[in-house]
Amino acid sequence: MKLDLIRELQGIVGEDYVVYRQEDLIVYEYDGSADKAMPAIVVIPDTAEQVAEIVKLARRNDVPIVARGAGTGLSGGAVAQMGGIVVALTRMTRILEVDVENRIAVVEPGVINLHLTEHVSQYGLCYAPDPSSQKACTIGGNVAENSGGPHCLAYGVTTNHVLGMEVVMADGSLQWVGGRTRETPGYDLRGIIIGSEGTLAIVTKVIVRLLRQPEAVKTLLAVFRELDQASAAVSGIIAAGIVPAAIEMMDDLCIQAVEPAVNAGYPADAGAVLLVEVEGLAESVEEEVEEIENVCNEFNPIEIRTATDQEARDRLWAGRKGVLGALGRLAPNYLLVDGTVPRTKLVEVLSQIRQLSRDSGFPIANLLHAGDGNLHPSVLFDERKPGDTQKALALGGEILKMCVDAGGVLSGEHGIGLEKQEYMHFMFNDDDLEAMARLKPAFDTRDMLNPAKIFPTGASCNEVAFAGAISRAGADAWI
Amino acid sequence: MKLDLIRELQGIVGEDYVVYRQEDLIVYEYDGSADKAMPAIVVIPDTAEQVAEIVKLARRNDVPIVARGAGTGLSGGAVAQMGGIVVALTRMTRILEVDVENRIAVVEPGVINLHLTEHVSQYGLCYAPDPSSQKACTIGGNVAENSGGPHCLAYGVTTNHVLGMEVVMADGSLQWVGGRTRETPGYDLRGIIIGSEGTLAIVTKVIVRLLRQPEAVKTLLAVFRELDQASAAVSGIIAAGIVPAAIEMMDDLCIQAVEPAVNAGYPADAGAVLLVEVEGLAESVEEEVEEIENVCNEFNPIEIRTATDQEARDRLWAGRKGVLGALGRLAPNYLLVDGTVPRTKLVEVLSQIRQLSRDSGFPIANLLHAGDGNLHPSVLFDERKPGDTQKALALGGEILKMCVDAGGVLSGEHGIGLEKQEYMHFMFNDDDLEAMARLKPAFDTRDMLNPAKIFPTGASCNEVAFAGAISRAGADAWI
Repeated sequence: MKLDLIRELQGIVGEDYVVYRQEDLIVYEYDGSADKAMPAIVVIPDTAEQVAEIVKLARRNDVPIVARGAGTGLSGGAVAQMGGIVVALTRMTRILEVDVENRIAVVEPGVINLHLTEHVSQYGLCYAPDPSSQKACTIGGNVAENSGGPHCLAYGVTTNHVLGMEVVMADGSLQWVGGRTRETPGYDLRGIIIGSEGTLAIVTKVIVRLLRQPEAVKTLLAVFRELDQASAAVSGIIAAGIVPAAIEMMDDLCIQAVEPAVNAGYPADAGAVLLVEVEGLAESVEEEVEEIENVCNEFNPIEIRTATDQEARDRLWAGRKGVLGALGRLAPNYLLVDGTVPRTKLVEVLSQIRQLSRDSGFPIANLLHAGDGNLHPSVLFDERKPGDTQKALALGGEILKMCVDAGGVLSGEHGIGLEKQEYMHFMFNDDDLEAMARLKPAFDTRDMLNPAKIFPTGASCNEVAFAGAISRAGADAWI
Repeated sequence: MKLDLIRELQGIVGEDYVVYRQEDLIVYEYDGSADKAMPAIVVIPDTAEQVAEIVKLARRNDVPIVARGAGTGLSGGAVAQMGGIVVALTRMTRILEVDVENRIAVVEPGVINLHLTEHVSQYGLCYAPDPSSQKACTIGGNVAENSGGPHCLAYGVTTNHVLGMEVVMADGSLQWVGGRTRETPGYDLRGIIIGSEGTLAIVTKVIVRLLRQPEAVKTLLAVFRELDQASAAVSGIIAAGIVPAAIEMMDDLCIQAVEPAVNAGYPADAGAVLLVEVEGLAESVEEEVEEIENVCNEFNPIEIRTATDQEARDRLWAGRKGVLGALGRLAPNYLLVDGTVPRTKLVEVLSQIRQLSRDSGFPIANLLHAGDGNLHPSVLFDERKPGDTQKALALGGEILKMCVDAGGVLSGEHGIGLEKQEYMHFMFNDDDLEAMARLKPAFDTRDMLNPAKIFPTGASCNEVAFAGAISRAGADAWI
C-alpha cells in the first residue's frame, strides 16, 4: 500500500519531490522541539492544487497529514507523531503580489519571514511580526503558530497582520477565508485557523497587511545591577504611557553566556540588561527615548547607551540575538520555556523561578519579551546525566504552572503542539477543552490533519474527538 | 406551556423581570434595522448564573433564545425572527474591575460603550472602539457585531480590544474563553464568538484592553468642491505614511442635510467634507497635522480648519455626528448601507454609486469611514410611495454587490443579521458558507441561539445546519 501511495504522490508532484527512503526521511523527524517521530513519506508540492490533490489522496487512504514549513517550531507542531505524510511547503516560496497602495501582499506559505520584509522594503514597507527565527521560519509556520516576536508589543501577533488565506480543507477543497480588508462578515474562519497548529486546514496562500517603515528608529540599552531594577523600569516605561516597539530583557546568566561570545561590552557586575526600541516620526522618537532614559535613571542603572543608525543598533541587539546560541557555553542542553504573565507579575514570577532554580540545583537563564510579560526561561541541563532531561522537563512544567497561577498563559508564542499537551489542564477545565475539541471535527471529520496535537491525550474530550486518530494509529502501519 | 415557562422564568429572575404581555413586548419587536418580529417572552436577568439557568430552561423546552443589548444594531441581529425568548442584558451594567497597571477592565455585557470610556477616564485611560451609537450601544452588542467606529482606522475593531469573555454556552454551561493577556493557547474561541451575532454563545462578562488617553488630539476639517478631490486627499494622506486616528468623509447631499440642522459653517458650494483626527504625543501630532494640511492643499480645498481644544473639536465633529439625524430633512426614510472596499477603489465605487442614483432616481447620500474604505451610502426614499421600500432595498443590494465586485466586503461593521443574509452569496460560494455553517452545531447542536441569522435561508448548507430551527419553527407556537 505504501508503494502505491508513493507512486500516486509522484504522479501529483513528480518523482523528485516524494521522499520515502529511511535515510532521507531522517531530516523530517525533528522540528525545533525535543520531540521526534518518523513520517512514512514526505511530499514537497509546488502549488495549492497539488496540496489539494495530496489531501484528497491521503483522505481516500485514511492516512494522517502534517504540514511543515521550515521546521523551526518549538513545540513539536511539525513532528509527525502519528506517522503518515508530511507535506513540506518549502517549495512554495513565491511572493505573488505586492499591492503598495493598499499595503497588502499575497504570499505562498513557504516564504521566509525575513525575505518578505526584505522584498517589500523597496516600497518603504515591512511585515511586522518578527519571530527570533525570522531568518529561517516561514509565513505559513507563523500562521500555524500565531507567532509573535520582539516587536509584537507595539504591533500585535500574526493574527493581527493576516487578512485572508487560501486554505486546503480536510476534504481537499480549496477555499478562501477572510479577504483583503480588515473585517469580513460571517464567522471568523481566518481567526480560528490562525494558531490552530495545522490541525484545521493547510494554508496555501496568505494575504498579509504591510506597514510603512518607520521614519526613525532608536534603540536604548540599559544595564542594571539587579533584575528587579530592570523589571521596575519596564513597569515605569509602560506606566508613563509609552508603547515602545520592543522591550527585551536578559538576566545575569544570559549575560554571562553571551558576553564572551559576542563582546557586547556588558559590565562584569551586570545583573540585567534592558533593550528598548522606539519607532515613529523622528521627533516623537527622540522625545520618547528621552522619557525612557528618565525612567531608567530612576532605577540606578550601571549605564545607558542609545543608537540611531542601523549598524550601532545592530551592535546593541547583538547581545540579545546571540543569547540562545551562547547558552551552550553554560551547559550542553537547555529547555526553552515559553509562558506569559500579566506585566505586573513579572517581578513575582521571576523571583519564584530563581527560587525554583536554587531548590532544584538547575541553572535557569531568563530572556523576556518584557513589555508583553512573555517569559522565556531556559532550564540548563546535561542530557548525559541520567534523569536530568526528565527533571528539566518537569521544571519547565512547574514554571508554566507558576505563569498560569499568576494569571498568565501556557504559551506566549510557541504553541502547544506535543510539548505542552499535558499542561493544557493547568489553564483549561474539561468543559473548556471540550468546547475547543468540538471544533476539530467541524473542520476535519476524520481527524486527518496533524492528529494528536494540542489537546491532552486521554482527556475525556479527546476520547470523543480523537477516537478516530487513536484507533487508526493502532491499526495501521503509518507510525 | 407558555404560562409554565413564564412561571419558571419568574422563579429565576423575579416576577418584575419577565415581560410577556403583548403591549409590553412591542418595544422588543425592533432593533435599529428595518426588520421586526415579536418574541414570546422577554426576560431581563441580573447575573451570569441567571442567564445560564434561562438557557438551560429554554433548552429543556426547545425554545429559541435571542440575546439583546441596547437594540441599536443595524442588521436585525437582535430581532427574534423565530419567536421564543429574548434575553435582554440591560440590567447587567456593572464595571466589575479596572486594573489600571495592566490596563484591562472586566465589565458586564450591558455596560454602555461610552460609560466605560467615561468611567476609566479618571485613570487617564479609554476604550478604543467607538461606534457612532456609543452613547447607547452596549459592550455586549459590540462583541456580537464586532463593532468598529470612526477611530478603528488606527486602533482596529472590537476583536482587537477584547482579551477574554465569560460566556454561557448553548448547553447552559458557564465558561471563560481567552484570558487577561493578548494571546492564549488552543483554538481561538474568543475570536470566533466575537462577531458571531449571538449565534454561538451569550456573553456575560468581557475583559477589555484599555488604552492610555493620548497626550494631544487635533482635528482637521477640509472642505472640497468635488468628492473626487476629497477621495484623492485620503489616498494622499495614507500614501504619506500617516495613520490618523480617524478619516471621515461626507458628500454634498450629507452637507445639504446637515448644514441647516447644525450650522457647521460649510460653504454653499461644498461638494465634500473631510474630517481627520490625529492623536499622540503633542509634537508628533503637530507635525502630522501639518503634513495632512500639505496633502489637502494639493487638491485645491475651499478651506481648511483645525482645532485642538475639546470644544472647538466638537464643533468640527458636529456636522459629521449630526448627518444621520439630519437626513430626515431630505426624505422621510433612508436605508443606511454598510460595505467596505479597498481604499484605492473608493473613487471608482463612489462614482458607480452616483451613477446608480442618477439611473434609479433615488438620491444617495454618502458618509464614509474613508481611511478604512468603509462606505455608508444612505438611499433616501419615502415608504408611503408604493414599491419604494422594495426599490431602496434592491439598490442597497446593488451597492453591496459593487463593493464585493471591487474586492470589498458586505459589511464593514454592522453585521449580517437578517438584513444581508441573502447577499452572503455575493461574497461566499456554497463551500465557503458550508464551512462556516458547520461551526454552528459545534457550539449549538440544537440551533437554539439566535437561529435563522447570518446564513442565507434555503441555501444547501443551511438545509443541513439549520434543519432543527426550521422544522421547530413550523411545529410550535414560538413564532
